[in-house]
Amino acid sequence: MTHGVAFWFEFASTYSYLSAMRIQALCAERNVPLTWQPLPLGPIFAAYGWRDSPFNLFPAKGANMWRDMERECARLDLPLQRPDVFPQNSMLAARTICGVIDDPRAPDLIRAIYSANFAQNRNISDPAVLGDLLTATGFDAASALAAAQTPEGKARLRAQSDTAAALGIYGAPSFVVDGELFWGNDRLERALDWATSDTGGGHRAAER
Amino acid sequence: MTHGVAFWFEFASTYSYLSAMRIQALCAERNVPLTWQPLPLGPIFAAYGWRDSPFNLFPAKGANMWRDMERECARLDLPLQRPDVFPQNSMLAARTICGVIDDPRAPDLIRAIYSANFAQNRNISDPAVLGDLLTATGFDAASALAAAQTPEGKARLRAQSDTAAALGIYGAPSFVVDGELFWGNDRLERALDWATSDTGGGHRAAER
Repeated sequence: MTHGVAFWFEFASTYSYLSAMRIQALCAERNVPLTWQPLPLGPIFAAYGWRDSPFNLFPAKGANMWRDMERECARLDLPLQRPDVFPQNSMLAARTICGVIDDPRAPDLIRAIYSANFAQNRNISDPAVLGDLLTATGFDAASALAAAQTPEGKARLRAQSDTAAALGIYGAPSFVVDGELFWGNDRLERALDWATSDTGGGHRAAER
Repeated sequence: MTHGVAFWFEFASTYSYLSAMRIQALCAERNVPLTWQPLPLGPIFAAYGWRDSPFNLFPAKGANMWRDMERECARLDLPLQRPDVFPQNSMLAARTICGVIDDPRAPDLIRAIYSANFAQNRNISDPAVLGDLLTATGFDAASALAAAQTPEGKARLRAQSDTAAALGIYGAPSFVVDGELFWGNDRLERALDWATSDTGGGHRAAER
């Protein structure tokens, strides 16, 4: 049988970008149902005592992450322009997506937001930028942005955080398949293998 | 042209185990020269303010690392027995390897130490265990252990730390090819691609 993949992504996360741009096509190729799950990483990192990205807190790690992104983007044929601000504040973008997640155009908007952040060096915390992206992908920008900033809009994203914590998620991107948690863009293909196999991607020996 | 791969490994590191067990055969297949570079991660983590493995400091991350190790070991057909102590104190093992690194049997000893840690739940900080492994791989255990504990033996491992820091290394396993740094077992194959290509593994667009 085929399980669905829940894709947990953070708009400020570089490696989430690599997955976000690829996952819908990969799932379509394999007939794997896909759900998009916005994830604010800030509260998770705050619980670690981090008030910034680990890629900024640990400079050697950050330097190599950007070099690795250059190599991986070249390999995956994805554009990359290192943003002036990293990580960007992704709260408004994530709340906006939560409000339109059931719309079939939502994946286009998600990719547009990632491209703005990592290929176009645009400020995705700016309502004007998000408004442009909403309009370009067929949404009513004013109403989507207004809904994101209501108490209900904020509560939707908080509920995502709570769900993520309950699933054991600690970073992004993450993939959850039938309760099995995979972390990192390097595990996207493994998650899809798991989703399409009776025996958990053939890894019967790893089953508990 | 073909560049060599410098493999930086920490005996206490789970993902270093996955690379250590595979890298010599993969390099041989591709005619890539390989050097083994013992790396004590403790001083690097201490510089981050960590006095323990991040997999212990951050329990959700640690739980999923062990699950991922089960999946990856099943995929790579490597045995895994979660050690009672993690991370193990690897200083004596690393100092011992430094003293015999030019011996052609050193890779056998390295793999034996990793198997002891991650497949046999043996205490690799115990000189008696290391002595068994040295003897089993053809070394004079008493002289190798004695050399590891001299001031010169300790200085050799400290020099490795200094070299690693100068290369920008911040974790293990790491691979360095012609100045290019790759981090993590998931990048082993990419490092080999880089080593065997004029254009950096075909990633010309990523060249600086």
